[in-house]
Amino acid sequence: MIDSNDIAGARRRIAPYVRRTPVLALEAGGLPGLAVPVTLKLELLQRTGSFKLRGAMNRILCAEVPAAGIVAASGGNHGAAVAAAAQVLGFPARIFVPRSSPEAKVARIRGYGAEVIVGGATYAEARAAAEACAGETGALDVPAFDHPLVVAGQGTAALELLEDAAVDTLLVAVGGGGLAAGCAATLRPRGARVVGVETSGTACWHAALEAGAPVDVDVSGLAVDSLGARSVGAVPFAVLRAAGAGSAVVSDDDVRAAQRALWEGCRVAAEPGGAAALAALLSGAYRAVPGERVGVMVSGANLDPGTVR
Amino acid sequence: MIDSNDIAGARRRIAPYVRRTPVLALEAGGLPGLAVPVTLKLELLQRTGSFKLRGAMNRILCAEVPAAGIVAASGGNHGAAVAAAAQVLGFPARIFVPRSSPEAKVARIRGYGAEVIVGGATYAEARAAAEACAGETGALDVPAFDHPLVVAGQGTAALELLEDAAVDTLLVAVGGGGLAAGCAATLRPRGARVVGVETSGTACWHAALEAGAPVDVDVSGLAVDSLGARSVGAVPFAVLRAAGAGSAVVSDDDVRAAQRALWEGCRVAAEPGGAAALAALLSGAYRAVPGERVGVMVSGANLDPGTVR
Repeated sequence: MIDSNDIAGARRRIAPYVRRTPVLALEAGGLPGLAVPVTLKLELLQRTGSFKLRGAMNRILCAEVPAAGIVAASGGNHGAAVAAAAQVLGFPARIFVPRSSPEAKVARIRGYGAEVIVGGATYAEARAAAEACAGETGALDVPAFDHPLVVAGQGTAALELLEDAAVDTLLVAVGGGGLAAGCAATLRPRGARVVGVETSGTACWHAALEAGAPVDVDVSGLAVDSLGARSVGAVPFAVLRAAGAGSAVVSDDDVRAAQRALWEGCRVAAEPGGAAALAALLSGAYRAVPGERVGVMVSGANLDPGTVR
Repeated sequence: MIDSNDIAGARRRIAPYVRRTPVLALEAGGLPGLAVPVTLKLELLQRTGSFKLRGAMNRILCAEVPAAGIVAASGGNHGAAVAAAAQVLGFPARIFVPRSSPEAKVARIRGYGAEVIVGGATYAEARAAAEACAGETGALDVPAFDHPLVVAGQGTAALELLEDAAVDTLLVAVGGGGLAAGCAATLRPRGARVVGVETSGTACWHAALEAGAPVDVDVSGLAVDSLGARSVGAVPFAVLRAAGAGSAVVSDDDVRAAQRALWEGCRVAAEPGGAAALAALLSGAYRAVPGERVGVMVSGANLDPGTVR
């Protein structure tokens, strides 16, 4: 499926273009409500403000990019990542964004030189438009999570983390599951495990685990703009299940509390999706056993920083 | 004066109580306006939100703390650091803060369990009250910068940085000069150099360099709450001068631009004093020569995060 070689290859490939993000080791009590030590992987410091650049870059670097360039659908972190990757590699990019995307995020995508096409009420409609465009023009489609090369690229974040800290369990937020699956594929051969964290309004991985296959869920709530995939991807699901990944579900209030705790305790300003994994630990939705070495992926910070108060 | 042994000793002493903060290596272009690669020391992630805990902790751990406990003067980062240090070590603390201190900062100091005594219009008056209290009660006075043990403690931040990255030049903001002097003492034996950065409204190190001795300056502007010492300390001045430290002066607008660049480019939310050192590089107030390895101390983030936009 996706093995250590895929992730090591992704790392070599994308290394010139992505930052090696640092970790921060926190003592118990180092954040309000933190009962155990934890290692934070500060992936929100990544170029473009989230982990998404890793997977997008890996997908693009493995492809023969046609003259029509690159297309993607996303009004958020993935759109910015694809636009930035295309810019640095010198390819034209078209990003399809739903009408619901905030103007600030659209402006950021434009800021990376991409053509932004606003249309469709939902992400699903923008996604369909991107696929249609790829079909018509031959442009390279870069999916947000449901592709082995995207998953392998996201897994490089966990590879870096393991060089800096030993972890038994890594808490990772799940939207479509690309980051969590990449991390699970990285950790599994080392005997460590991923727990995928979602809000109750975006719990597609939890639903898929219960159903035994990806299923559509209704999405809503605080984290919907970053974690609001209606279904976990088929590739991520297969990887997560094979790796024995766990699930934890938190409330929007838990996420807000985690955002405040990150700011109060270590001056990290994370978006809701970026703070969700930590919320599982602080809220007790995930309980570590004594001596368990816990890592948390703090995955994104594309937010108005004033909202972390 | 202050040598490598002092700083190595400080590090051993304070290690159980302070975080080892991470560095972030940025490529040229990694921040808006960044023309050269740079290594950021993310000291704003330190407990209490600034480097001040290092020096305060070193001073306290070297002393016999009397029953009357600890006193300090500061409505800002130093006050929070002393309060937190006293709390974790189990000593009572009284922090004298000027009436001008924002309620949010005072509340944070109280949150670390210290008794807060609000009085005096200026920092100088609060400082005089703290010294009077120490004289009357025998409490241990922890100065904000003008003490060899405080300077040595702050220097541990540079010691960590050098383990993570090679630097020829380290840009450090100067308030009273404690951090810059500690870093200069750490770097000098390794052939590297500190450049002390101030805003034009808080340029006491620049004035002291010109005068050949610490002199009082009028302070004003954006960074006054963290860099607004009226004079560089006698101990920091002697250390900085002996180490051949340089000086760079930036405008408040340069600092605001650096705050925005840090947020836009790597999602770091720094207070004005914490972003001032970077401002020297982005504004051209400090110009690196080709191949020069530049480090920047991002020293604090006790701010309303919404203000970095």
